[in-house]
Amino acid sequence: MQRSLNSIFALLIVSLLTSTSYARQADPSSTLVDEYRSVADQLIDAALADSAAWDRLAYLTDTFGPRFSGTENLESAIDWILEEMKRDGLENVRGEPVMIPHWVRGEEKLMLLSPHVRELQILGLGGSIGTGPAGIQGEVFVVHSYDDLEANREKAKGKIVLWNVPFTSYGATVQYRGNGAVRAAQAGAIASLVRSVAPTSLYTPHTGNSRYDEDVPRIPHAAVTIEDALMMQRMQDRGQRIEIRLMMNDYWLPDAASRNVVAEIVGSEFPDEVIVFGGHIDSWDVGTGAMDDAGGCVAAWEALRLMKKLGLQPKRTIRVVMWTNEENGMRGGNAYRDAHMNELEDHILAMESDGGVFSPKGFGFSGSDAAFDTITQIGKLLDRIDSGLITKGGGGADIGPIMREGVPGMGLRVEGDRYFWYHHTKADYVDKLDPEEVARSVATMAVMAYVVADMEQRLAR
Amino acid sequence: MQRSLNSIFALLIVSLLTSTSYARQADPSSTLVDEYRSVADQLIDAALADSAAWDRLAYLTDTFGPRFSGTENLESAIDWILEEMKRDGLENVRGEPVMIPHWVRGEEKLMLLSPHVRELQILGLGGSIGTGPAGIQGEVFVVHSYDDLEANREKAKGKIVLWNVPFTSYGATVQYRGNGAVRAAQAGAIASLVRSVAPTSLYTPHTGNSRYDEDVPRIPHAAVTIEDALMMQRMQDRGQRIEIRLMMNDYWLPDAASRNVVAEIVGSEFPDEVIVFGGHIDSWDVGTGAMDDAGGCVAAWEALRLMKKLGLQPKRTIRVVMWTNEENGMRGGNAYRDAHMNELEDHILAMESDGGVFSPKGFGFSGSDAAFDTITQIGKLLDRIDSGLITKGGGGADIGPIMREGVPGMGLRVEGDRYFWYHHTKADYVDKLDPEEVARSVATMAVMAYVVADMEQRLAR
Repeated sequence: MQRSLNSIFALLIVSLLTSTSYARQADPSSTLVDEYRSVADQLIDAALADSAAWDRLAYLTDTFGPRFSGTENLESAIDWILEEMKRDGLENVRGEPVMIPHWVRGEEKLMLLSPHVRELQILGLGGSIGTGPAGIQGEVFVVHSYDDLEANREKAKGKIVLWNVPFTSYGATVQYRGNGAVRAAQAGAIASLVRSVAPTSLYTPHTGNSRYDEDVPRIPHAAVTIEDALMMQRMQDRGQRIEIRLMMNDYWLPDAASRNVVAEIVGSEFPDEVIVFGGHIDSWDVGTGAMDDAGGCVAAWEALRLMKKLGLQPKRTIRVVMWTNEENGMRGGNAYRDAHMNELEDHILAMESDGGVFSPKGFGFSGSDAAFDTITQIGKLLDRIDSGLITKGGGGADIGPIMREGVPGMGLRVEGDRYFWYHHTKADYVDKLDPEEVARSVATMAVMAYVVADMEQRLAR
Repeated sequence: MQRSLNSIFALLIVSLLTSTSYARQADPSSTLVDEYRSVADQLIDAALADSAAWDRLAYLTDTFGPRFSGTENLESAIDWILEEMKRDGLENVRGEPVMIPHWVRGEEKLMLLSPHVRELQILGLGGSIGTGPAGIQGEVFVVHSYDDLEANREKAKGKIVLWNVPFTSYGATVQYRGNGAVRAAQAGAIASLVRSVAPTSLYTPHTGNSRYDEDVPRIPHAAVTIEDALMMQRMQDRGQRIEIRLMMNDYWLPDAASRNVVAEIVGSEFPDEVIVFGGHIDSWDVGTGAMDDAGGCVAAWEALRLMKKLGLQPKRTIRVVMWTNEENGMRGGNAYRDAHMNELEDHILAMESDGGVFSPKGFGFSGSDAAFDTITQIGKLLDRIDSGLITKGGGGADIGPIMREGVPGMGLRVEGDRYFWYHHTKADYVDKLDPEEVARSVATMAVMAYVVADMEQRLAR
C-alpha cells in the first residue's frame, strides 16, 4: 500500500512535470498571455480612458519650461514631481543626489558680413568655449565630410570650418556635431560650425553636446540652420567670399546639486527584485524638452500611477527613475549605477523611453535569447494597441551604465519620423505630441513593466 | 464689269468674314493654339533646359539677402538686376523712382516672467511702435476672436492681449495681424500679440504688416509662435497667471528713395500696347524673401530673357516690372499706376506671381468673359506641363492699382500648400524651391505673356 501510494504519487508528479514542461515547450509563455490578458486590458483601458498623461506633461513643461542642468527650472520641476508622486500614493519617493555640470549659454550671435550683412541664427553646442567679447571674425570654409577636410587642410587653416553634412541617420550625422570642433582645430581652424543635425528645417538650429580633446586646441563650436549651411555651400561653390563674425559668451559654472527622481510600488513577494523604467528629467535649455524627454518620464510615472490607482501590486518592485543630466554629462545614469551597484544583480529589467512618446510600436530589447522570448510573449498583450513588436537591440542612454553591468535593457520604439524635426530645438513643445499617442505609450510601458515584475519566473539573464 | 467685279469682291469679303466668324464660333481660339504651338514649345523647352532661373534666384537672394524697404540691400539688389538685364540684351532697362517708407526693426525681446522665466521668440509686426527702452510689463489675456474679446472687455483692460486665432485661410486669419493692435487698444489693452499666421511651425514667428487707426491709441504689436500661443492658452485655461515683459525698439526713419525695376522687349507692330508682368522686389527684413517674392520677379525676368535669347519679338511690348515696397506700403504699385496713367488704356494685360514659384497650375484671371475665353485657349498651350488651368478671379497686390483702372489682370497659381509655412519668416530661402518647378513657372508666364502680346487681336477688355 505504502509502495503503491508512493508509486502513484511519483507518477502524478512526473505527469504534472511533464505536462507543464510540454506546455512550456509548445508555447513557452502562452500561459503568460492568458494569465495577464485581463490585467493588461485593465491597464490599457485605464491609460486610454483620458488625457491625464498628456495633461501632466503639458503642465510640467509649460510651468517649469526647459530643465537644463544647473538651472533652477530643473530643480523646481523635480521638487514639484516629488510632491506629486507622494500625492499619487507612490512609495519610497525620493531624490537621489547627483552633482551635475553647469554650462551656461551666454549671448550668442553670428553676423554674416559678406556677401551681405545679416544676423544668422545659431545655437552654440553644449560645452563650447566662448569667443571672448570681441568675437571671432574670419572666412568660412565649407566641407562635407572628414575626408573633404583632410583633402583640403591648407584651405581650412585660419578659417572657420562649416561642416555641411546632410542628415542621413542621427547616428551617422551627429558625429560631426560631437567631434567637429576637434577635427576642425586639428586642421588649424579658428572656429567650427555644424549644419544642424536634422532632416528638415524652418530655419531651426539644433543644439546638442560636443567634446574637446585634451591635446587639441579648443575652438568655439556652434550649429547653424540647414538653410544657412546650404546657402554658404552655394556661396563657396560660386567663388563668393564668405566672411562672418561669431560671438559666443558661453561659459562654465561649478558643478551643481541635482537629483535622480525615484518612486516605487514595492513588490509583494520579491521586494528586492526591481524593474526600473523611466526617462531623463533634464533637457536642453531651449524649447521645453517635452519629447526630449519629459514624455519618457511622464509615461513611466503615469504607468506606475495607474497601477497604484488600480490596486495592482506586483510580486517584484517597479521603480520609476527620472535621471538627471542626460544631455550634457550622463551624470544621472552613472550616479544611479554607482548608488545601486550592490543591487544590480537583482535589477531584473531596465526600460527607457527617450525617443518621444509618439505612436508606440514596441521595444528594442538587449538581453539573453531566453529573455527575448519571454518579452516577445508579453508583447502579444499589446497587440490590441499595435505596440507589442519586440526587436533585438535597444536600450537608452540613462540605463546604459547599468546595462553594461549586465542588466537586461530595452527602449520604447515609436513612430519617430518627426522626432528629429524637434530634437534639441526651440520647437520641442507638448503641442507636437498627441494625447492618444501619449496614452498608448503609457499603456505599453505599464503592461510590459507590470508583467515582468509580476510573472512567476524571474526574467532570464 | 466694274459692277461684276465689285460684286465678286464683296462676295469674297463676305465669304472670308463668314468663314472666319464660323471658325471662331466653333472654337474661337483653336487657331491661336495651332498658331502658337511651336513657339510655346520652344519657350517651354528653353525654360526646362536648365536651372538658370533657380540659379539666378539663388544668386540674387544669397548675395543680397532680404530686401526690406529703406535698406541698402534692396537698392544694391536693384542695381545688380538693372546691370544684368542690360547684359541680357533687354530693352529700355530702367529704375522708375519711388519714395518708400522706412520702418526699422530694432532689438525685440519677449520675456516670459511667470509661470517660468524664459525668452520667447517674437517678430514685431511692420509699422509697430516701440515700447520704449523699459519695455511693457503686464499680464497676458488670451482671446480667440473679436467676439471673444468683446465678451471679455473688462478682462482685457490694462493687459497684453494675445490673439490665439487658429489658421484657417490666410485671408480669414490675417485680419487679426492687421487689425489686432487697434481692436486690442479699443478694449484698453497695453500691447497686442498675435499668433503667427501659419498652418504649421517649428517655433517660427511670422512677421507682416499691421495698421493703426488715427482715433485709437497706438500700442505695440508683435507675432508670437504657434507654440507659445498654444502654451499661453493652456496656461490661461488652467488659471495660471501669465506675466511677460515686451521690449521692442522699432522705429521709423524718413522715406527713402527706391525704384520699380523695368525692362522690355519692344513690340514690332504695336509698341505702345503693353503686357506687363512681374512680382515685387522688396521683401520683409527676415529670411531672404526667395519665394516672397524674388521668385515672381525672376520668373518674369527669365521669361523675357528666354524670348530675347530665342529671337522672339512679339507684336506688342512685353514689360517686366519688379515693383518696390509691396510689403509695407504698396508704394511701387501705386507709383507705377501714377507714372503710367496715360498709357493704361494700352495696357493689355497685367500678370503677377506672388504666391511662390512652386509647381504652377495656371492663372486666376480678372477681366471680361471674352478675354477669359481667349486666356483659357492660350492655357491649352500649357497642358503639356499641366499649368494651363484658368480660373475666374485673380490678380496681385502690385497690379491691383492698375487693375482698378480697368487693366485686365491675372495671378500665377501654384501648388501652394507650403507657401504659408515660410511666408514672412526667417525660413524663406531658395532651398525650399525646386529648380524644375521654378523652370515650369518661367515657362508658364513666358507662354501666356508672349501669346497675348503677339496674337493678331488685342485682348478684349
